[in-house]
Amino acid sequence: MDKVYTIGIDLGGTNTDVGLVTSEGECLEKVNVKTSNYSDAGQFIYDVALAIQGLSRRFEVELQGIGIGAPSGNFLKGTIESAPNLRFKGVVPVKEMLEKLLPYNVSVTNDANAAAYGEMVYGGAKHYSNFMMITIGTGLGSGIVIDRKILYGSDGIAGELGHVTAMPGGRKCSCGRDGCLECYVSIRGIKETYANKVVEAGLPLDDANVDVRIIAQRARENNQQALETFDYTAQIMGRALANAQCYTSPQAYFFMGGIVESGDVLLDPIKKYFKQQKLFIYNDIPILKTSLNKNNAAILGAAAIAVCENNSTTNQKNRQK
Amino acid sequence: MDKVYTIGIDLGGTNTDVGLVTSEGECLEKVNVKTSNYSDAGQFIYDVALAIQGLSRRFEVELQGIGIGAPSGNFLKGTIESAPNLRFKGVVPVKEMLEKLLPYNVSVTNDANAAAYGEMVYGGAKHYSNFMMITIGTGLGSGIVIDRKILYGSDGIAGELGHVTAMPGGRKCSCGRDGCLECYVSIRGIKETYANKVVEAGLPLDDANVDVRIIAQRARENNQQALETFDYTAQIMGRALANAQCYTSPQAYFFMGGIVESGDVLLDPIKKYFKQQKLFIYNDIPILKTSLNKNNAAILGAAAIAVCENNSTTNQKNRQK
Repeated sequence: MDKVYTIGIDLGGTNTDVGLVTSEGECLEKVNVKTSNYSDAGQFIYDVALAIQGLSRRFEVELQGIGIGAPSGNFLKGTIESAPNLRFKGVVPVKEMLEKLLPYNVSVTNDANAAAYGEMVYGGAKHYSNFMMITIGTGLGSGIVIDRKILYGSDGIAGELGHVTAMPGGRKCSCGRDGCLECYVSIRGIKETYANKVVEAGLPLDDANVDVRIIAQRARENNQQALETFDYTAQIMGRALANAQCYTSPQAYFFMGGIVESGDVLLDPIKKYFKQQKLFIYNDIPILKTSLNKNNAAILGAAAIAVCENNSTTNQKNRQK
Repeated sequence: MDKVYTIGIDLGGTNTDVGLVTSEGECLEKVNVKTSNYSDAGQFIYDVALAIQGLSRRFEVELQGIGIGAPSGNFLKGTIESAPNLRFKGVVPVKEMLEKLLPYNVSVTNDANAAAYGEMVYGGAKHYSNFMMITIGTGLGSGIVIDRKILYGSDGIAGELGHVTAMPGGRKCSCGRDGCLECYVSIRGIKETYANKVVEAGLPLDDANVDVRIIAQRARENNQQALETFDYTAQIMGRALANAQCYTSPQAYFFMGGIVESGDVLLDPIKKYFKQQKLFIYNDIPILKTSLNKNNAAILGAAAIAVCENNSTTNQKNRQK
């Protein structure tokens, strides 16, 4: 009973993984709950609680707390709000629901903030007090850390770097605005850029709609359109990092997501363009890949929320005022 | 001796005002030291110390601390660093120099952060914990407040909203980059936009190079080019505020500077464009003029640094690590 254990929950639209995590950041076991099987949030949370109870009993451990990383998770409210890829509609008060069933503190945040927590507690940001985590997937998410605390803002939903304008009058974003960063720097954005390059070059359209991993592979083989695609993407991301530095002046940027973790095809040119475009008063800070293992990164991130925010229920209540 | 008094120093390239400020935000008296008369920082600081001593003796008050608002002031280092409009070159350790001469804590920050402190302690932001102050003058400065603390970042110089890209490939900025916000939203930027509008309209060039107050007056008289100028400026500022919200999700924006304080010719369209361009998940937050009186705003801001940061010398030293 000396060790401290937490539960990290990676809540996704299709699958939810419930993991038991040690204070050293080892995931001892994870249990899957198939999110897409549930239309009722109450039943889903009940089954998640059962999974937690099962893990706690099986390993005979006392839990320090529970962290949940979820799309549209709101830390200050303890809710998931109208997440587009979840069947549960409206506002789901997951913190309240789970705390009613189990005697532990529950903290909720979005995936990108969870990734930032994970990097801070178990990963490469252990010694940084100010940094940003940027997650590149279908969209672009971000978690901003200041003085070792996630920046939540006045309403729990600060840190949406993906929707900062990269190109006024540019690509139409799903948010309704135009030219958002994630229209360019995301799987969707990279695929669109590549398709444009292929069309511009007058090449067969069949080549245009390919997986982003294929585009990365082609870039490594010096395919011109693929190289131009990553160069263009990196230029936009590099400038976005230079601009982000004008806000919080972090000590480092971290990146997570297949396309940045699988090789240097994107990260190397991002470093180059950041250096070129940063404001002269700021340092050329490190731009790093996450050091967390892909398989458990989301669970570790969620568990890290519990490590950082446990015993801070009072704080949370104060912050809501 | 019940009341608490602070010294606020508004350090500028031409003039430095040293003010004695009560805890209610009343400036009892100010003494001018002509900055431009000094080529030697040591002599200048010595005369500032004499002015402080004079005020303290004359009013027979004990001082809580000294705050300095200065161009390129670095809070974490206590320095003024290569300020372009000061005769003192290189790094001037004003905090250390003044603390050697007087038995009080000295805190230094830049003008825009000082304005944010002033608004927080004596102005309209008393009840806000998260807000941004934007100062429009020759350039555009900003102070970001999170949980009632100025965001200093890893090196004391975070919060440079004026150098966030508003227009990739746009106007050349004095910082060497292109399309920075302050190339558009500043006295210089507004004058340039107006000159462009006059030229585009084929009007006499004599009309182009006029004071920004004249442009504002013409806008109030429904002059088309002047109206278009403020509309364009507001559109860029509105989008910048929408983007800034994606970082820190503040509760309010405050503006300071003649062009925003003198009327609604700029602030009204900024409100309109912010509302149009903000990300849907965020609130339509208040956009306000400073409530501080122009004559003493800079001194009150500087005094407010001393109020907030006094007795925090230990903190500052910790933050430097």
